Formats: sequence, C-alpha cells, structure tokens
Amino acid sequence: MKKVAVIMGSDSDFPVVKSAVTELKSFGVPCEVHVMSAHRTPAEASEFAANAKANGFGAIICAAGMAAHLAGVVAAHTTLPVIGIPMKSAALEGMDALLATVMMPPGVPVATVGINGAKNAAILAIQMLAVSDDALAQKLDAMKQNMADGVRAKDAAMQEQIAAL
Amino acid sequence: MKKVAVIMGSDSDFPVVKSAVTELKSFGVPCEVHVMSAHRTPAEASEFAANAKANGFGAIICAAGMAAHLAGVVAAHTTLPVIGIPMKSAALEGMDALLATVMMPPGVPVATVGINGAKNAAILAIQMLAVSDDALAQKLDAMKQNMADGVRAKDAAMQEQIAAL
Amino acid sequence: MKKVAVIMGSDSDFPVVKSAVTELKSFGVPCEVHVMSAHRTPAEASEFAANAKANGFGAIICAAGMAAHLAGVVAAHTTLPVIGIPMKSAALEGMDALLATVMMPPGVPVATVGINGAKNAAILAIQMLAVSDDALAQKLDAMKQNMADGVRAKDAAMQEQIAAL
Amino acid sequence: MKKVAVIMGSDSDFPVVKSAVTELKSFGVPCEVHVMSAHRTPAEASEFAANAKANGFGAIICAAGMAAHLAGVVAAHTTLPVIGIPMKSAALEGMDALLATVMMPPGVPVATVGINGAKNAAILAIQMLAVSDDALAQKLDAMKQNMADGVRAKDAAMQEQIAAL
Amino acid sequence: MKKVAVIMGSDSDFPVVKSAVTELKSFGVPCEVHVMSAHRTPAEASEFAANAKANGFGAIICAAGMAAHLAGVVAAHTTLPVIGIPMKSAALEGMDALLATVMMPPGVPVATVGINGAKNAAILAIQMLAVSDDALAQKLDAMKQNMADGVRAKDAAMQEQIAAL
Amino acid sequence: MKKVAVIMGSDSDFPVVKSAVTELKSFGVPCEVHVMSAHRTPAEASEFAANAKANGFGAIICAAGMAAHLAGVVAAHTTLPVIGIPMKSAALEGMDALLATVMMPPGVPVATVGINGAKNAAILAIQMLAVSDDALAQKLDAMKQNMADGVRAKDAAMQEQIAAL
Amino acid sequence: MKKVAVIMGSDSDFPVVKSAVTELKSFGVPCEVHVMSAHRTPAEASEFAANAKANGFGAIICAAGMAAHLAGVVAAHTTLPVIGIPMKSAALEGMDALLATVMMPPGVPVATVGINGAKNAAILAIQMLAVSDDALAQKLDAMKQNMADGVRAKDAAMQEQIAAL
Amino acid sequence: MKKVAVIMGSDSDFPVVKSAVTELKSFGVPCEVHVMSAHRTPAEASEFAANAKANGFGAIICAAGMAAHLAGVVAAHTTLPVIGIPMKSAALEGMDALLATVMMPPGVPVATVGINGAKNAAILAIQMLAVSDDALAQKLDAMKQNMADGVRAKDAAMQEQIAAL
Repeated sequence: MKKVAVIMGSDSDFPVVKSAVTELKSFGVPCEVHVMSAHRTPAEASEFAANAKANGFGAIICAAGMAAHLAGVVAAHTTLPVIGIPMKSAALEGMDALLATVMMPPGVPVATVGINGAKNAAILAIQMLAVSDDALAQKLDAMKQNMADGVRAKDAAMQEQIAAL
Repeated sequence: MKKVAVIMGSDSDFPVVKSAVTELKSFGVPCEVHVMSAHRTPAEASEFAANAKANGFGAIICAAGMAAHLAGVVAAHTTLPVIGIPMKSAALEGMDALLATVMMPPGVPVATVGINGAKNAAILAIQMLAVSDDALAQKLDAMKQNMADGVRAKDAAMQEQIAAL
Repeated sequence: MKKVAVIMGSDSDFPVVKSAVTELKSFGVPCEVHVMSAHRTPAEASEFAANAKANGFGAIICAAGMAAHLAGVVAAHTTLPVIGIPMKSAALEGMDALLATVMMPPGVPVATVGINGAKNAAILAIQMLAVSDDALAQKLDAMKQNMADGVRAKDAAMQEQIAAL
Repeated sequence: MKKVAVIMGSDSDFPVVKSAVTELKSFGVPCEVHVMSAHRTPAEASEFAANAKANGFGAIICAAGMAAHLAGVVAAHTTLPVIGIPMKSAALEGMDALLATVMMPPGVPVATVGINGAKNAAILAIQMLAVSDDALAQKLDAMKQNMADGVRAKDAAMQEQIAAL
Repeated sequence: MKKVAVIMGSDSDFPVVKSAVTELKSFGVPCEVHVMSAHRTPAEASEFAANAKANGFGAIICAAGMAAHLAGVVAAHTTLPVIGIPMKSAALEGMDALLATVMMPPGVPVATVGINGAKNAAILAIQMLAVSDDALAQKLDAMKQNMADGVRAKDAAMQEQIAAL
Repeated sequence: MKKVAVIMGSDSDFPVVKSAVTELKSFGVPCEVHVMSAHRTPAEASEFAANAKANGFGAIICAAGMAAHLAGVVAAHTTLPVIGIPMKSAALEGMDALLATVMMPPGVPVATVGINGAKNAAILAIQMLAVSDDALAQKLDAMKQNMADGVRAKDAAMQEQIAAL
Repeated sequence: MKKVAVIMGSDSDFPVVKSAVTELKSFGVPCEVHVMSAHRTPAEASEFAANAKANGFGAIICAAGMAAHLAGVVAAHTTLPVIGIPMKSAALEGMDALLATVMMPPGVPVATVGINGAKNAAILAIQMLAVSDDALAQKLDAMKQNMADGVRAKDAAMQEQIAAL
Repeated sequence: MKKVAVIMGSDSDFPVVKSAVTELKSFGVPCEVHVMSAHRTPAEASEFAANAKANGFGAIICAAGMAAHLAGVVAAHTTLPVIGIPMKSAALEGMDALLATVMMPPGVPVATVGINGAKNAAILAIQMLAVSDDALAQKLDAMKQNMADGVRAKDAAMQEQIAAL
C-alpha cells in the first residue's frame, strides 16, 4: 500500500495534526510524519516532495498556519496529490492560512480542507488511496455507516433530554 | 481507467467549468459532465453520488456558487474523493462559496480548490487517478515540465521587453 | 396546531439550540427536536424534510455550523418555510455558517437568523404559525409588551446606577 | 388570502426588488409595494408596520442596502414575520446590508435571505402563507417540480454541448 | 450648557458605555443616560430623539451591538448630531455593529467612533459643544496636553525598562 | 458663522468629495477646500489643523483612501470635531480606509461617516454648527422634511409603476 | 551600487509591476527583472534567491497574486531584504495575496507593501540601498520635496475649481 | 553601525514589541526604544522621524494597533526605511492595524510585517543594515542555519513522539 506523508510547518501544530495521524493508523494506512518548514528548511521540504512518489508515497498532507506556504511549496515539487490543512493561529481566525493554502494558481492545485481540519485531511488521503484499493474503500463505507449510527444514537439520546426538559 | 464526473449546480457555471473538462480530455481521462443542483434536484445529485463508484468513477468534481452545498451533498453520499470548486457569483467575491465548500465537518471532507479554480480541480482529479496509474503520472510530469518551460519562455521574453523600456 | 421541528447537525449545538426549544414550549407550540446531519445522515434529513408537511409540521428550524448545509438540504426537500441558525464554531466567528446558510440560490430560500440566534428562530417560527392563529398572535403581542417593559425597568434601574456614580 | 407587503428603502432598489413582486403575482398572492425609508420616513414605516396585521397583511418583505435598518425597524413594530433582503450597493459587496439585516437581537427576528435575494424573499413569504393554505402549498410543489425539470433539461442540453467539444 | 444624552440598547452594554459617562462628568458636561432599544422600545427611542433638541440636548450618543440600529433610528428623528458606538458582541468581533452603524444612507449621518469606543464618543460630543463654548474648548486643550504628557512619561519610564533588559 | 474645512488627500478624491462642498454651500455654510496629504504634505496638514480653530473653523472634514491617515493626523492637532470620509479605492472596497479612519485610539476621536459618504459628512458638520445656530437648525429640519417628501413622492410614483406591471 | 531584483510570478503582472521598474530606473538603480514562479519554476526562484547576494543584489522585490508564495519562497533562500507586492487578481480584491505575503512566520520576514503597490516597492528598495548611499538618499529627499510640491500645486488648482463652482 | 529605532504607540504594546528589542540586541545592533504616539504626541513622532537619519539611525520600526497611523506618520517625515508592526488589539483580530499600516499611498511606503510580528520587524531591519555590513550578513546566515537546525531537531523529536503513539 502507498504511504501517506503528514508534514507540519511547526511542531506546535501537532496537537491538531495528531488526529490526522490517528485516523490514518486506524485505517491501517502507513504514514510518515515530519516537521518541515517551507521557510526554515525549504530544501528538506522540496527534496522530500520531489522524492515522495519514488519513496512510495501516494499523497502528502501539509499543515501550516499564517502565510501557509508549505502545501504550495510541496505541490510545486511533486505530481502527487497534496492536501493542505490551514491552521488557525494567533490572529485572523485561520483566514490567512486558508487563503494562502487554497488560492493556488492554475497548474498546481492544493486539495484544501477546512481550518484545523486534520481528521478530514486524513480521510481525504484515504479516499484517494481507496480509488484503487477496494479493501480500503470498504473501510470507508464502514466508517460512513458508523458516523451515521453515531448521529442516530445522539438523536435517540436527544429525545430523552427533551422529554426531561 | 476510472472516469471523472464534473457536476455543476447551474449551467451558468459552464464558462468557468469548461476548462476542467478540457483539461481532463487533454489528459485522455474519460469524464461525464452534468448539471445537477443540491437544492433543485437533490435526489439526482444524491443518487448520482451514491452510485458513482459502482458506475466506474474515481473522483467527482463539483462546482457551485453562493451557499455552495453541492460538493458537500455529493460527499455525503459517496466515499470517492470529492473536489469542490467555489464559484464567484454576483456578490461577496466568491467568499461565500469558498467557505460553504471548504469548512466541512469531521468525517466528510471536500478537497477544495481556489475560487473558480476549474483547471486545478481537473488536475487534482488526475493526480488522484495517477496514484495508481503510472502512464497518467508521466503525463503530469510532462505538464509540470511544460509549465516550467512556459515560465522560462516568458522570462526570456521579459528580458526583451525590459531592454526596450 | 402545526408542530415546529428543531433539527441540529450535532448534539454539541444543543446548549445554544436549547433556547429555541424553551421558547417554543413557553408559547405552547408543539415541537420535535432531532439530531440529523446533512453530511452524516443525509437520508434521514431528506426524508424528514420530505414528510414534514404531511406529518403536521408548519416550519422547520435547522441549526448547523461551519459549511452549514443542513438548512439548505432540508429546504431542498420541502416547501415548508425553513429557518436557518448559523452556529458559531471554532474558527471564523460564525461567518462561514452564516454565508453557507443565507446565500441560497433562487427558488430555495432559507429564512436565516443571526449567528447563534436560536431564540429568534423560535420566535420567527411562531410568527409564521401566528399568521393564521390569532391566539398565538396575541401571545406574541404580549411578549413584545413584556420585552418593552423589561427595557423600561432596566432604564429605571440605570437611573439609580448613574445617580450613584 | 393574506396580503404580502413589499417595502424598499429607495426606489433605486426596484430593479432588483421587482422580481419579488413578479413572483408574488405569479402565485396569485396579493401584494402592496411601497417606498418607505427607516431613516427618511420613519413614521410611515413604523405606522405601516404597526397596522399591517390589521390591514390584512400576512408577511412583510423589506429591502434595504448599506446600514440596512428597514427590516429591523419594521420588525420592531409588528409581530408579523418580516423578511429582509440585504441589497448590494456601491461598496462592500452587500456585506454591510447582510450583517445589518440578519444580526438582530433576541426577541425581534428578521428572516433574512441572500444578498439581492428578492425572488427568494417572495417564495419565503408564500411558504409562510402556505402553512395554512393548501392551494398555495400545491403551487409551491409545482414550482419545485418545475425547477427540477428545468435543471434536468439543462443537464440534457449540457450533454449535447459536451459531445460537441 | 447643552446636555449630552447617552443611550444604550441594552444594560449589558454599560460596562463599556460607562467610560463615556465618566468622561462627560469629568468635563462638567451634564448628561442623561438611558437604556432604550431600537427594536424593543422603538417608540421611546423615537420620541426621545424627536424631543431631544427641545429638551436641551446638544448631542446624542448611541451604543448598540449586532445589527446596531439604535443610532440610525435616533438620527432619523432628530437633526442633532448623533454619535454611534458600535459594540463588540459574541460574534464577528464588532464588525456587524460597525457596518450597521456607519454605512448610513445620504441625508442621515451617524458620527461613528471605533468599536467599543465609548470614551471617544464622549470626547467627540464635548468637541461638538466646544465649537461654541470656549471654556469647554480650553478643557479639551488641557486634556490633549495631559495625554501628551502621559505619553512622554511613559517614554521616560520605557528608557529605564530598556536599560534594565 | 464658523467655517467648515474640507480636506482631501488627493485631488482624485474630488468627484466624490464635491458633494460635500455642494451641500455646505446649499446651506450657506462658508467652507474652504484643500488638497493636503498626511503623507506627502504632513507639515501643511498639521499646521492647518493646529490653526483651524483660531482661523474661524468649526469643523474639519477629511477624505482619504487606502491607509487613510488624514483625519487622524488632523485630529491629532486640533480639538475641533474632525469628520472622516473613508474613500473607496482600487482594492478592498473601501474597507481599508474605513478601518484606518474609524478605529481611533482613546482620546482622539474621528467622527466617521460611511464609505464615500461625502454628503453625510457635510450634513454632520452642519448639525454640529447648528447646535448653537437656530437658523441652521431650521434649515436642517426643512431638509429632513424635503427628504421625507421625496420618499413619499417616490412611493406615489411606485404605485403607478406597480399598477402597470 | 547594489542591484535590485524585480521578480513577478506571471508576466500578466507586468502592467502593474512595470512602475517598480520605471521608478528604479528613474533613480539610476540597476535592476534585473524576471518572471519566476514559486510553483512552476521553484528551482529557478530558489536558486536565484540563494545566489542573489553573491550576484550583487541588495534587495529583491517579488510580486505575486492569489496564494502569493513567491516572496516567502525567495525569503526562505536569502538573507537579503525581500519586498512583497500582493497583486489583486480575479477574486477577493487582493486580500488573499496580502495575507499570503505579509503573515510570515518568525524568522523569515517579507517587507510587504500595499496591494498592487509596485511603485512603493521600488521606493522601499531604494530606501534600503540609501541607508549606506548618501547620493541616493539625496535623490529620495528630492522626490519627497517634489511630491509635496505636487500636492501644493494641486491644492492651488483646487482653489480655482472651487471658486468656479 | 547605524542604529535602529523601535517606536511603539503605547507602552501596552511592549510585551509584544519586546522581542524586537531582544532580537536587535542579540545581533549587536544598537537601538533606541520610544513610546510615541501619532495622535497624542505627533510633534515628537514627526521630529524624531525628521532627525532620525542625521541622528545615526538606519531604520525605524513602528508598532501600533487599531487605526495604526504611527508608521505612516513617521514615513511621512523621513526617507529612511520604515517598518510597520500591526498590533492585534481588542477587536477585529488585528485586521484594522494591518490595513492601516500596509495600504500606504504611492510615494510613502511602509515595510509591513505580519500582525504582532515584532521579531520579524527586527530581522528585517537587520537585513537592511546587512546590505552594506558583511559581518551582520554573516550573523543572519548563522541565524538561518540555526533555525533550520531547530526544525531538524524538532523533526527528529517528532519521530520519537510518533513511534510512541
């Protein structure tokens, strides 16, 4: 199975990014996790991206905040699908990272998920791998079913809460 | 080869969405194009999404403007990767469609590209298919090379323009 | 009397949504409360909406955050008036949910109230029912009078506070 | 049948607001149309609102731009449901009117539709009247069916357009 | 001397608005403070505004949050200068109140100060009265001098802080 | 009678600012109009402000776009009331000028009107002068009456337009 | 004298960027102009930046729109001061480029000028070189004087325009 | 060596601005730190700026919040490069200060760093001085190397954290 790379621009992003790693592991998708910065270690980030396909990766998840260039820089060096997680930081509620991640010029897309959307980044990566992996696709179906069951259980619990009002 | 679906919420989106279709065709990726609305033909949109995997699709591109729900509604009914194109419409510069597309709740991601980013949506879909299709991956490498050559040619032309200032 | 449905996308919305339920009960308007998700249980949400009129509902209140599609998805399946409450969530101060709820395309309106405006959603639903229910209209008049009296009492109390400055 | 009032803050809003009037007429819903300003003719606006229920109105649509206070001022004087249309004007893309219309304080809701959403305001008013008017509800069902057919026809036309690419 | 009115839409605004009252008192400008709501006690607000000039007021300060209509409603009923304080509330960082206060249509201005700018609202009112009151103008000159001295003192203190780094 | 100064940061602002001059003239309020820049002729702007009271001015209107510092710089040098007109320029829809004008720190207010609100700036200046000038106050009352009559005439005209639909 | 590099992400930026080149030339500052893309020719951009100091450059101006990464990528590879020009493009009024350029993480600054602020980027570069070049500093003083004279001339012309009203 | 001035509009900015001072000191760059306000001590700010070059300064850092005019006012009085730090304050997440700092008119640039970006302001000032100071340039190279090493160390630490998941 192809691996998924999870790269974050700073280890301070890990409390949010961790749920991407957990999700990948729960699906049995092998992953590598790195701290690499588009601005502080640009060579490492570029080289990692340039070699990612040859090294067995199928998708690269990049999390960064503020003027979030990491996903774009990685996408510049690979034809693998790159998933961007805009991180909310101290100002502007994550809008800076969202726009810096999603508004890519023609030719170099970044598949952007919501602000701090680490879990969704992982699911999106798994969906990409599942295009050619039926076992993985079945796990996604099961997860979708579980989510629906979870909502149904909460709806049932809500009925009791309302009755008690 | 898996097909790519291109769905738009209104045929008025086609002048922008067309470049996604053109891009897919230029890579030889088979596609189907539909006008389906999350709000006016929700049953068609849901059904299309629910059956898309069985019908041979590998990714679904959804373009919609304003309170752009199409990509989210489609993503609710499939485990295929769903790519959202937020369309700029008469007010708010596309910010409404961007937020309505990208800020998906945990469990149901939409791979969002930039506002009116139809070409990038197609390239992203191709990148997803190319994860397990080396011929396609090579075409993406060639496109990347061509883009770079294009920039280099423009840089060369710029030198003449500057010299003539 | 027609019933009012209160649907929320996640039970984490209940601390805010609860005031809609309380308001409806205080007016003696029968209501049903549900947790249903446009993205995780789309079939339930659609089916509930499609049958709501036949099941005796007169209006449907939908609360959702982020890319808030719930009200739009419900409105796609019913001709009952649908009231949307945009929920403030972890980023963007509720602007995402507001735009995703209010900017509906022509033909499928959502009557949107302010961010986290659960009480107002209930009052709006009651106003709709009161169009053809004079007893309910009189209760609304009384509430309006009470609100005014409350402001007057606070103005009187303010005079003492100012005198003591 | 209850009437619907359509009030606009300036006659310069009429090119947009006109589609609300047209929609109401096409459903056979009687309406009155007025130019009244929350800031220039506040007495007229307040008095109209205060007497609207007694004068046979079932809902009031208010269109205003910039610091759009009209819907709020009208809602302050009636318990009828008030529908607000935020108008896009020369600056800020209608965001000013949207926030000034939708963010009403607890107790005085305005059912807000999208920026320039005149047609949807009319449909929402009709939906409110249809809660207790089955003939009107059937017309709404028919309109929903027509909308869906319209999208299906456009989808069919799109197939030809794509085939010709 | 003309009086200044300070009106707030809710007594929950008082912790911020209080500094306007304190400032007016420190300049010896007589003031009245009221809780009046554009939406809950519109008649009181309108009547107060309509009679304010006859009742000896020279300016009216209005503080309100969210869809802040208070200043506009008051301005609609008087030709006295009306000063608006946009209040920051639970969502949107005060941007809603700012736009709802400042973007007034031609003919009915509101002199808007910054978000939560209660002290500045008072100073602005004093500046207006001082146009025809030299004693008041001299107090403003003194305040300006005091402010400058305060900054100079802080600059001196800063030198010690820096030396100790 | 006190004079009103109208200062603009660039003569390219004059097409908008002109309506302030026209309005002042129509009320018979003497005014001086200047092009002065906070950034290009800061000494002139500061000196003008510092001497404005002594030179017979009662209020200063400042129009500027982008990082609009003119009103703030003028307010720093006078205790006269300063009115700021945020000008819409090539980007950001005037939001930059609005925030740069209105968000003044405690102690130095700028009475801000809406984006491009030149006419309202003039009316606000007239309202300030009218606090101690009854003849001017009566002209403002007349203008208010004229505005109301204008709206009423438009409402009457609208009735014919609607009847003809 | 050190050279200034002017890099743009696309030759479609040249109509705006041209004024930077013109300004540099008018000060006699040698410059090189390039089309290089952070996403399409990342190697060229990185290499250019890495060698810029050795190649005799004193500052690098980077113009880019949308998710504008060019200035950040260049700054990652040099310790020369990097000046970013956020370009306004088809959506969002340049806000995307502004945030993507200015919100750099600690350690890697980009000296950002206003949206489309090409002329100011050049002047800023010249100011940097002038820190150690008195002849250049004198030219800047002269330009400042000329700007002031220009404003004064426009103020004089305005007097005639006003007199003719 | 040229000195760097660090000016803040209020001493309440010092907790953020302090890191600029610390950074300058760690590079051995002499600096002066002042509290000066564009609005409360405009004469001091202008005079400081006008004399800064003659007094041995090579760059001026200005930190201010809200309608942040300090950098612009300083830039109006000097041809030294002026660096602006937009400060986040109680409302609007720093967007007000960012726009008020960066959107300067042609001819008077401010080199703007990110919101609260005090450390980057210092580094940018050092980069400017280093254009003609090789020893300083070498220290910047060393810092860049240290930053990269720091990221690499965090990447190594991350591997252990992931292994322990």
